[in-house]
Amino acid sequence: MPETHAHRRDALRAHLRERDLDAILVTDLLNIRYLTGFTGSNAALLVHAADETGAEQRTVFCTDGRYLTQAEEQVPDLERVIDRASDLALAKRLGEAEGSYKRVGFESQHVTVDSRDALAEPAGPAELVRAPGLVEELRLIKDETEIDALRMACAAADRALAELIEHGGLRPGRTELEVARELEARMLDHGAAGPSFDTIVAAGANSAVPHHRPSEAELATGDFVKMDFGALVDGYHSDMTRTVVLGKAVDWQREVYELVRTSQAAGRAAVRVGADVRDVDAAARQVIADAGYGERFLHGLGHGVGLEIHEAPALSQRGDGRIGDGMAVTVEPGVYLPGQGGVRIEDTLVVRPSTPELLTLTAKELVEV
Amino acid sequence: MPETHAHRRDALRAHLRERDLDAILVTDLLNIRYLTGFTGSNAALLVHAADETGAEQRTVFCTDGRYLTQAEEQVPDLERVIDRASDLALAKRLGEAEGSYKRVGFESQHVTVDSRDALAEPAGPAELVRAPGLVEELRLIKDETEIDALRMACAAADRALAELIEHGGLRPGRTELEVARELEARMLDHGAAGPSFDTIVAAGANSAVPHHRPSEAELATGDFVKMDFGALVDGYHSDMTRTVVLGKAVDWQREVYELVRTSQAAGRAAVRVGADVRDVDAAARQVIADAGYGERFLHGLGHGVGLEIHEAPALSQRGDGRIGDGMAVTVEPGVYLPGQGGVRIEDTLVVRPSTPELLTLTAKELVEV
Repeated sequence: MPETHAHRRDALRAHLRERDLDAILVTDLLNIRYLTGFTGSNAALLVHAADETGAEQRTVFCTDGRYLTQAEEQVPDLERVIDRASDLALAKRLGEAEGSYKRVGFESQHVTVDSRDALAEPAGPAELVRAPGLVEELRLIKDETEIDALRMACAAADRALAELIEHGGLRPGRTELEVARELEARMLDHGAAGPSFDTIVAAGANSAVPHHRPSEAELATGDFVKMDFGALVDGYHSDMTRTVVLGKAVDWQREVYELVRTSQAAGRAAVRVGADVRDVDAAARQVIADAGYGERFLHGLGHGVGLEIHEAPALSQRGDGRIGDGMAVTVEPGVYLPGQGGVRIEDTLVVRPSTPELLTLTAKELVEV
Repeated sequence: MPETHAHRRDALRAHLRERDLDAILVTDLLNIRYLTGFTGSNAALLVHAADETGAEQRTVFCTDGRYLTQAEEQVPDLERVIDRASDLALAKRLGEAEGSYKRVGFESQHVTVDSRDALAEPAGPAELVRAPGLVEELRLIKDETEIDALRMACAAADRALAELIEHGGLRPGRTELEVARELEARMLDHGAAGPSFDTIVAAGANSAVPHHRPSEAELATGDFVKMDFGALVDGYHSDMTRTVVLGKAVDWQREVYELVRTSQAAGRAAVRVGADVRDVDAAARQVIADAGYGERFLHGLGHGVGLEIHEAPALSQRGDGRIGDGMAVTVEPGVYLPGQGGVRIEDTLVVRPSTPELLTLTAKELVEV
């Protein structure tokens, strides 16, 4: 939608003017996708602080010959340059403009030391100024189109899990890898372009390893089976985790499960506009700590999702900043007992003015399969 | 295999000594995988120029808490530190060593401008020296374990295509996306961990777009169907392209097909130890140019494959360097007639002392499905 992308470039311009930048060279591919809709694997973008009405201030897009047709289709409204070394080609524009560029931002959180060196010469007299995270700041707040994509991605994941269980996909003797493959195939059936990350399926003692990679290990009766997976829709990444018991749960399993469920509910209740991200983490963490399992919650409470699977904000003790209306975040506490098993429960939510909108709709009651 | 990784670190040490570096901070994840076998998504590695026998010269590996168990399993032979900010934690080691580090290399082709800034303070008096591409240079030449992984990946792709065709997977009315999904599922059936990149299936006029993304467009009788796909095995990426005709080929299709086939054979014949990469590209390109289609060959001849889908060497007019024994490369010329159709034929090869070893075994005769 060219209007959406033009609108986002306008928002970026406000940031450029605040920082007294004449332009910004955008080189991070996801940021270019956000600003133009281009989905190819090589591109650079020059956005001017002045708006797009004057010919000299037009946004310039550059990619290489492989994407000639794709660029025409996806970026019809911008001036397009074809050059394999896209960042250098646009830097050359700066240098050839005979001094009309004084200060040009570059994405120092993304540009490598070697690339920065290579940009200096073609950029000529233009001063290249560190301007990290400007587009990421815009991406923090999702518009309704983005939320729709996340909603569809979460729905694909919900449906995949529901079908997996309905069709007996979780049964003793099946391997973690088989379950992971089935979840991924089912998400594709429900409209996902692919999985949003490497699906985690962890059974029995493996469920105590937060990021266990699915293996040939077989599911067995009595196991916790922890499944952390998500779908990719229009470039947007969903993320969810559910932990079930194969057969009947025993007491320690019920205890740990209910603890994590209570913690996750407390975490979700703390996700409110204006809340400090550390307080959101603490709200969930305190529940687990009060039960004596603080040492077993081995990671932060959650993270933003969007064009990346992990983006701002970090809901953790190490994060900083406040929750804002329109952010999309996960809430995913876990308790992990090495050699025994673990539970993680995770939803993707969108922050709204009052209570967050839950995008992951699968119920969170303990399921005994 | 710890011995393999220790051997690779020894090879890296030779490079460090050549450059008068006391150590190198490795932060690129694929390079860390190459040097240690670790496959997690966050890590840093400090490798000393002196060998690993002395306690102070031990290689130090750092990752975060999510990978505690995985690091113990994958990197048992190295000192392991757990810290979320892995690069900074190892930089701190440098700073705390009271001047025993004079010059420490960092991966300037990978480290961002902002990260480089952040490393300065913890590194203390140690001078951080740009040391780009040292590990990539080692990765250029594949050992037999790596070639085995590539061979298996190529085999999975070969089998997937054979089965797709045998089972009637290429037929009018089927969509490009359905074909892409089937190829990817079949590669998984044959031992791939996943596809090595987003599968390209391009039918009819779409086959004239070098990197067409598979769509809901339906295959039709008379179409060229160009399929570019690969498998991922143990982190190694294969890459192949075959173009078939749905139904009977007409004259212009035969002509273009045979031209590309001849060009590809010439390209493969030019892949010899010591050959300049530009000459390899030219050998294939000349065949197409002599037939008057030079303007329709829209990209370089090929690229290295390995832990990345595109790595050194670049077989193109813009590349430089010579072919070496043990490199793994693709040879993939194409001719693209906009609005009509296109052909690309691609194999993955391993350079050997005499003729290259072809890893892609699917025949290259024109197939009319």
